[in-house]
Amino acid sequence: MKLNSFDKSKELFLRATKVIPSGISGNKNPAFAVPGSFPYFAESGEGCRYKDVDGNEYIDYLAGYGPIVLGYNDPVVEAAADAQRKLGAAFNHPTPRAVELAEKLVDLIPAIDWCAFGKNGSDVTAYAIQTAREHTQRRKILMAKGAYHGSQSWCRHGLGGLIESDYEHVLTFTWNDADSVMDLVKKYDGDVAGIIITPYHHPAFADQEMPAPGFLQTLRKICDDHEIVFILDDVRAGFRLDMKGSHEYFGFKPDLTCYCKAMANGYAVSACCGSQPFKNAASRVFFTGTYYTSAVEQAASLACLDELVKSNAIEHMMKMGTMLMDGLKKTAADNGLEVRLTGPPTLPFMTFASEKNFRRSQLFSGEAAKRGVLLHPHHNWFIMRAHKEADIQRTLEVADACFAIVSKEFGKD
Amino acid sequence: MKLNSFDKSKELFLRATKVIPSGISGNKNPAFAVPGSFPYFAESGEGCRYKDVDGNEYIDYLAGYGPIVLGYNDPVVEAAADAQRKLGAAFNHPTPRAVELAEKLVDLIPAIDWCAFGKNGSDVTAYAIQTAREHTQRRKILMAKGAYHGSQSWCRHGLGGLIESDYEHVLTFTWNDADSVMDLVKKYDGDVAGIIITPYHHPAFADQEMPAPGFLQTLRKICDDHEIVFILDDVRAGFRLDMKGSHEYFGFKPDLTCYCKAMANGYAVSACCGSQPFKNAASRVFFTGTYYTSAVEQAASLACLDELVKSNAIEHMMKMGTMLMDGLKKTAADNGLEVRLTGPPTLPFMTFASEKNFRRSQLFSGEAAKRGVLLHPHHNWFIMRAHKEADIQRTLEVADACFAIVSKEFGKD
Repeated sequence: MKLNSFDKSKELFLRATKVIPSGISGNKNPAFAVPGSFPYFAESGEGCRYKDVDGNEYIDYLAGYGPIVLGYNDPVVEAAADAQRKLGAAFNHPTPRAVELAEKLVDLIPAIDWCAFGKNGSDVTAYAIQTAREHTQRRKILMAKGAYHGSQSWCRHGLGGLIESDYEHVLTFTWNDADSVMDLVKKYDGDVAGIIITPYHHPAFADQEMPAPGFLQTLRKICDDHEIVFILDDVRAGFRLDMKGSHEYFGFKPDLTCYCKAMANGYAVSACCGSQPFKNAASRVFFTGTYYTSAVEQAASLACLDELVKSNAIEHMMKMGTMLMDGLKKTAADNGLEVRLTGPPTLPFMTFASEKNFRRSQLFSGEAAKRGVLLHPHHNWFIMRAHKEADIQRTLEVADACFAIVSKEFGKD
Repeated sequence: MKLNSFDKSKELFLRATKVIPSGISGNKNPAFAVPGSFPYFAESGEGCRYKDVDGNEYIDYLAGYGPIVLGYNDPVVEAAADAQRKLGAAFNHPTPRAVELAEKLVDLIPAIDWCAFGKNGSDVTAYAIQTAREHTQRRKILMAKGAYHGSQSWCRHGLGGLIESDYEHVLTFTWNDADSVMDLVKKYDGDVAGIIITPYHHPAFADQEMPAPGFLQTLRKICDDHEIVFILDDVRAGFRLDMKGSHEYFGFKPDLTCYCKAMANGYAVSACCGSQPFKNAASRVFFTGTYYTSAVEQAASLACLDELVKSNAIEHMMKMGTMLMDGLKKTAADNGLEVRLTGPPTLPFMTFASEKNFRRSQLFSGEAAKRGVLLHPHHNWFIMRAHKEADIQRTLEVADACFAIVSKEFGKD
């Protein structure tokens, strides 16, 4: 076993702490991973692998927190981006790529009739709740406790720099508990503008929860009965479950849908999409940014979506994810450990059944990183099209060694 | 004179209206320009010129609403972006480019000690006001009436989709009226977190206003006296007035500064920068987005900033802008018209002295566009390094013809 050096990562991080708050801000801060066992800075990527600045290579299951859906440096996406780049990215006007991308999404996703483009998921989830408020002329937004809908102020109850007004009209219900939704709808009768949900529950630091039978369909009915806008935040799962949208995978129909991560294989583009009745309201919300219409990202997205469809990528990723999930469960059991594998196969996550404090998870993930496999201890994983059987096999071999270490350190379950 | 065809623009716009709210959202919507006289879609750019989808070419003074500071398709920036692209853009971690860019900005700008990166100006102005609130544990933010600080909900009083809570703690004062600031500070004694300003006043649909002598220095003193965070929104003017920050041009020192447009010659990156005392508060605000650390944009920014410094670009742009402003004033007078040229030479704007309804401006801009020169009727203009004397001369020839048309239509002043 090779012991990774993080000398260059540490040196850069030291420099970073001097000129960047926390050194690295947001969810890429090492404090959110396994400090000392994960690298801090990346150098390059190819297929399902990337190298850190010290030259350590990882089979990657975090995919840049989601966007890398085909694989790093995908030739088809890069060629499309390159061709557009020679024409230009930022202009006074959009380019034809904006129209082509909107038409492609409308064509792909039966539930939607229109799209508007941003750069990050947060841009479009904020736009969606504003569109719901504009459409209904009401104030309240309901979201699931623990759900992540981006970094804008409306959905980050009580975090640094926020004030109560930022989120006073955003209320939380319990995932899979339709009664808790109905209670809020009754309590704020006539003032609920929208319900925003992810297609399944994927909070950080917790097992993923699939929708209970009928839960999403009940929410749909509540929205219909009370003229509430039903918003799907498909930023994380979009185009990894069903090319027609994750709501097709789970059998329900949202009014507005937000996409981002897997849209463009690493290029910054996001979309808020919706059905016809909400288009007028959407057009009355001022939604703009200097780079919202950048053409290179849109060209990359056109190529990425085409490639996902053409290569039947989701089917392959489902197979790889299932192999990984089944393999981890079996390998853990072989080492006398019980693990929970949750979420759909293309976005799996693993926790140890006997703990809630993630100490086993952190040891496991840290040891796996040392052996060239990046599996996040607190955040769901992402399968890419570039993951092949040999990569999953190698991952399971590494997992076997890491489970043995966990078992030795913490004992068998 | 060539009469431009907009057949392809119109055809695309018709397609766009079917699948995108308003067809084109935000400030790039044709309704904000001269409908029927400006193209709707861009095709390609080179130097200070771009082509629309119908093949019409324009000497451009809008620069993609600011980001194109060197010129379209600048070879140095594109080479730097290309080199990074081969390594990758989106990873689980930042790349060394993040640290290098933060160090470069800290090195360039004496007033700052740290930076954090976003994608659009709105990302960083929101982060700045949250940092001010976190630092002071107060709620109120003061901004100038008519100022634009981005598209997030806190600064868009009364627009579609917003509710009062979004902006109830954001109050407006009158530009160049320090008493109106002091009135608010007294009224909300002990609850004012920050004052946010642009380095000079550049509202849309109005003349630009430079700071009156002492105005910015008085605001600085008010902030010092009342422990209020002084925030400079340098998104639009940054790196077009002084490479050390626009506050150096005007002789004051902000606590936090926001940059975006001219940072990377068209690549989507923005920065919130600040001095040491505000770094801890900044690190307690959750500031993240999947693409906030994308390395290609940061590599482009490193190259763009270097190139601006090395080529003394601002000096050249000041010269070109002065030639344009002086030339327009004289050419207008030659045609019996009085125009107001306002703002600094690198970000000029022109209105007709005898009107407030922009009808002359729209006719002038529309006729100029037909002749291959893009001068926006309602929004300030941007000079690029790629503008040369011959381009300004050509622009003044076109302006002469357009002033004659305005004079014929509306009469001499």
